[in-house]
Amino acid sequence: MPMNSYITNALSDFFFKYETPRQVLVRNRRVGVVCRLIQLGVLAYIIGWVFIYEKGYQSTDTAVSSVFTKMKGVGYTNVDGEERVWDMVDYVFPEQGDSSFVVMTNYIITKGQKMGKCPELTEPRYLCNSDSDCERGIIERTGHGHMTGKCVGNTTKTCEVVAWCPVEDDHAIPDPALLMSAENYTLFIKNSVTFPAYGVKRSNLVEGIDNQYIKSCVYDPTTSPLCPIFRLGDLVQLSGFNFATIAKVGGAIGIVIDWTCNLDYDQSECKPVYTFHGLYGNPNEIDMARASVGYNFRYAKHYMEDKQEKRTLLKVFGIRFDIIVRSVARKFDIIPTLTAIGSGVGIFGVATVVCDLILLYLLPKREFYNNMKFKVTETVEQVSLSF
Amino acid sequence: MPMNSYITNALSDFFFKYETPRQVLVRNRRVGVVCRLIQLGVLAYIIGWVFIYEKGYQSTDTAVSSVFTKMKGVGYTNVDGEERVWDMVDYVFPEQGDSSFVVMTNYIITKGQKMGKCPELTEPRYLCNSDSDCERGIIERTGHGHMTGKCVGNTTKTCEVVAWCPVEDDHAIPDPALLMSAENYTLFIKNSVTFPAYGVKRSNLVEGIDNQYIKSCVYDPTTSPLCPIFRLGDLVQLSGFNFATIAKVGGAIGIVIDWTCNLDYDQSECKPVYTFHGLYGNPNEIDMARASVGYNFRYAKHYMEDKQEKRTLLKVFGIRFDIIVRSVARKFDIIPTLTAIGSGVGIFGVATVVCDLILLYLLPKREFYNNMKFKVTETVEQVSLSF
Amino acid sequence: MPMNSYITNALSDFFFKYETPRQVLVRNRRVGVVCRLIQLGVLAYIIGWVFIYEKGYQSTDTAVSSVFTKMKGVGYTNVDGEERVWDMVDYVFPEQGDSSFVVMTNYIITKGQKMGKCPELTEPRYLCNSDSDCERGIIERTGHGHMTGKCVGNTTKTCEVVAWCPVEDDHAIPDPALLMSAENYTLFIKNSVTFPAYGVKRSNLVEGIDNQYIKSCVYDPTTSPLCPIFRLGDLVQLSGFNFATIAKVGGAIGIVIDWTCNLDYDQSECKPVYTFHGLYGNPNEIDMARASVGYNFRYAKHYMEDKQEKRTLLKVFGIRFDIIVRSVARKFDIIPTLTAIGSGVGIFGVATVVCDLILLYLLPKREFYNNMKFKVTETVEQVSLSF
Repeated sequence: MPMNSYITNALSDFFFKYETPRQVLVRNRRVGVVCRLIQLGVLAYIIGWVFIYEKGYQSTDTAVSSVFTKMKGVGYTNVDGEERVWDMVDYVFPEQGDSSFVVMTNYIITKGQKMGKCPELTEPRYLCNSDSDCERGIIERTGHGHMTGKCVGNTTKTCEVVAWCPVEDDHAIPDPALLMSAENYTLFIKNSVTFPAYGVKRSNLVEGIDNQYIKSCVYDPTTSPLCPIFRLGDLVQLSGFNFATIAKVGGAIGIVIDWTCNLDYDQSECKPVYTFHGLYGNPNEIDMARASVGYNFRYAKHYMEDKQEKRTLLKVFGIRFDIIVRSVARKFDIIPTLTAIGSGVGIFGVATVVCDLILLYLLPKREFYNNMKFKVTETVEQVSLSF
Repeated sequence: MPMNSYITNALSDFFFKYETPRQVLVRNRRVGVVCRLIQLGVLAYIIGWVFIYEKGYQSTDTAVSSVFTKMKGVGYTNVDGEERVWDMVDYVFPEQGDSSFVVMTNYIITKGQKMGKCPELTEPRYLCNSDSDCERGIIERTGHGHMTGKCVGNTTKTCEVVAWCPVEDDHAIPDPALLMSAENYTLFIKNSVTFPAYGVKRSNLVEGIDNQYIKSCVYDPTTSPLCPIFRLGDLVQLSGFNFATIAKVGGAIGIVIDWTCNLDYDQSECKPVYTFHGLYGNPNEIDMARASVGYNFRYAKHYMEDKQEKRTLLKVFGIRFDIIVRSVARKFDIIPTLTAIGSGVGIFGVATVVCDLILLYLLPKREFYNNMKFKVTETVEQVSLSF
Repeated sequence: MPMNSYITNALSDFFFKYETPRQVLVRNRRVGVVCRLIQLGVLAYIIGWVFIYEKGYQSTDTAVSSVFTKMKGVGYTNVDGEERVWDMVDYVFPEQGDSSFVVMTNYIITKGQKMGKCPELTEPRYLCNSDSDCERGIIERTGHGHMTGKCVGNTTKTCEVVAWCPVEDDHAIPDPALLMSAENYTLFIKNSVTFPAYGVKRSNLVEGIDNQYIKSCVYDPTTSPLCPIFRLGDLVQLSGFNFATIAKVGGAIGIVIDWTCNLDYDQSECKPVYTFHGLYGNPNEIDMARASVGYNFRYAKHYMEDKQEKRTLLKVFGIRFDIIVRSVARKFDIIPTLTAIGSGVGIFGVATVVCDLILLYLLPKREFYNNMKFKVTETVEQVSLSF
């Protein structure tokens, strides 16, 4: 056949025909009801769960997020008659308002350390009787300095070290915590989220929050859930901790800002939800065997005195705050919708298979239905006869 | 039947048979063309959108990322005849090159504060006439210290506090900003990304960037989009801010490094794209009612003078930079490909359903096609007669 | 027909009927075996790969994570007879235990800088012969200060600047690194992860780790893979770096804590795996042309001397640690299971299509099978005759 006619025939064969599967229509009440119920059940699952509950018709995006913080409040101590005030410059580490910071609630202070030689602490591992017990040049794993090889001291002798002297003695943690006044500090959180896929920008200073509101509001989960000012005592309580305990040895609290937004609605409905989590177990029950209770670090203020470099060492116990932003925005999108429909049709096919099984293997008249459903082919000769 | 024969029969029944659905081949031009067009449309959607546009044949992975920064540049101020230079040690917080840092552009300095008693600021809430107006022991929510209970002062009397004295007066923000010279500082960003699922490591110092290039290049979105050195004035402008305004009260800028890589191509095509976003609204329009404009924090340098602990307090206004890495790498993977095909077949089934509906309910000859498609079963007796 | 009867008829038509596709049962050994093998292959792929290997029956969630660190250890230097010890307060930046920090291993110290006028470094770009070579008010891109316009010096003349004087000369990097003793420092990592979707909280201090264990264990990939204490020298070695080289110019190491948990098993099986990655290339091969080798930043300690503000500048070379948490938890969920089944059914349909193609186009008896499978419809008249 000439090429033209061949192509024309092929095209008309393709375009002008349509195949549709032949089907057996079974009029049986029991089978009909059972199978329709199975099909309706599958349909209800697809529409109800996949589409409505799990929102299978929407695409999702996570946010690019930025968090700034600011502490306000003043602490007051009166130790050995020395009155002292601690403002945010003194008790927040680091100072520039990161999403992760520590508020000092207790401390052990060692003033006026200078580089020199002095005895180690009177702990079992540093005890000695003579110089031979102290090996020169050794640095103990958790020691304070570089051993000189001498054994010094009067009543209790310990190895001498080159270190910042006098060596810090951190056995006695002040109880109650020195800065219990931290309970009244306030934390201001400013959080900006952007969902790039949808071009949506939101801030936790939602519509209705202005300078006047911020000056006086305090966060409360029921009465003012959108106020971005949090009282420290409330934060600790909402995390399940006891303030006195966490203030003494320190602890860690996670503040999760959750943005779950359905962008098929108005943008102003996209608001943050704050939740508070104690991290690393509950320091209310101080189990001395448990590993690593509390939170602390060391910090020093350097200065010169009489042309000598000196420092004041602080072992800081405090509450570590980690502000974590969780975000998911959903919006109607044709792709996940059609994918869900496609999978749904596939699952519907399973319903058909189940009903077929009932029809072909379980019913009394199954032989009959088998014959209706299947046309068996034997050899060509046999079939041509019965055809 | 013996077990052997039973199993053999079952196996041969399973392996030596094959079921294929019987179909009606409808030769009708209109139906044929319409249904073929629907089927071609669905096929075009599956191939065009799901596979090519949305890359449904590829799996995705996000990167493990690390960012280091370094500021270079020197600022110069001449305040009250005092010449002073500010280098990166003076104006970057924190100093170690994090992905989130502040560049100081303006400040209010309170020198030589020491712990003691002094009057609060002359603000309405601190004003008093006599000692009874000042309650001892109170710490105001945004106060500077711990009230002593006295009312002090000459013309204007305010409550006395234990605080770092003299108390900071931050009403007058220097205008223009003291460190406008910050416009010429340069920021160097080093970013490493690893896609663990594909074992691919990339750095923003791509092929072609060496020490010589870095010494002289400056980022420009069109002429040098891969140069990792950014001029601060350019960053501010690209974010949509005005430098003079943001320098005075501070502000926040997000630098997003976007890695969208198709790893089916050569790795060297995987390059970063930098975009710049002003966070928290536009400080060009300073609306005094709007909440929390600008960016600032407080910072102190401690020192000893005459055996007294003193500090110099700075209220720092600056530009906060948050460098955020967004990453998605795609590579051909058999699983998502087959899943997409599977869903596609399902959607194709919908096309068949639609055409069946047209065939069985809308066409003139639908009764005829109904008969062709369906074989109706009645009772066994009825069927045996017609069979 | 009255409405009631119409609705009743429609409902009974819907509920009491059931359609099942008619099928041709082909008894042909070759076709049967081939098609069954294809179908079994598809089934094996769906069950084996999609369900078992890729865990398609489970939903996934990523963790909300928090990381705290603590360095312990003491460094020792003896420079020009000056013995000095460096403890964690001296060598860790920042001090509060973030997930990203630097451990100083080498430094260039410039003591007693004070604000004033002094000559720039003797580098080619600062050299001059007379005052006209130095433009007043200029700040060089990588300069140290603000040019005064004078050309000063004896043998080699350079432009004078207002800067922190004397200007830092950072050409000679100490070799070997001054703090090689950093090799013996230890790093303690505390990491808490929460999978909010499943309400599961885990910590890297897994069951079996208590205070006693922590006091003496050291991480080893084979013998103690769960010990959260890491020796710095080991970390460097496991990242593929050479300690002497990385200590001299600095470098960056990523510690990835990987939580891959199957929550269908007991929670105690959910344990972290630590891996170590050198970031930014290997400083073992110092290629001077390569861009930006090593890691350093500048840091200053301010003090007052004779009523003059002074500072000691340190150019810090160190190892930057970035602790990154990767997490994925999986748990059986009905939705992804049914979605995978649905897609699987769709793919199964492809197997049927392939077999049909073999049957209808490749076999010798294909004409015969074509007739079996398809019932062709012509015009109404033709069909009524053959029906």
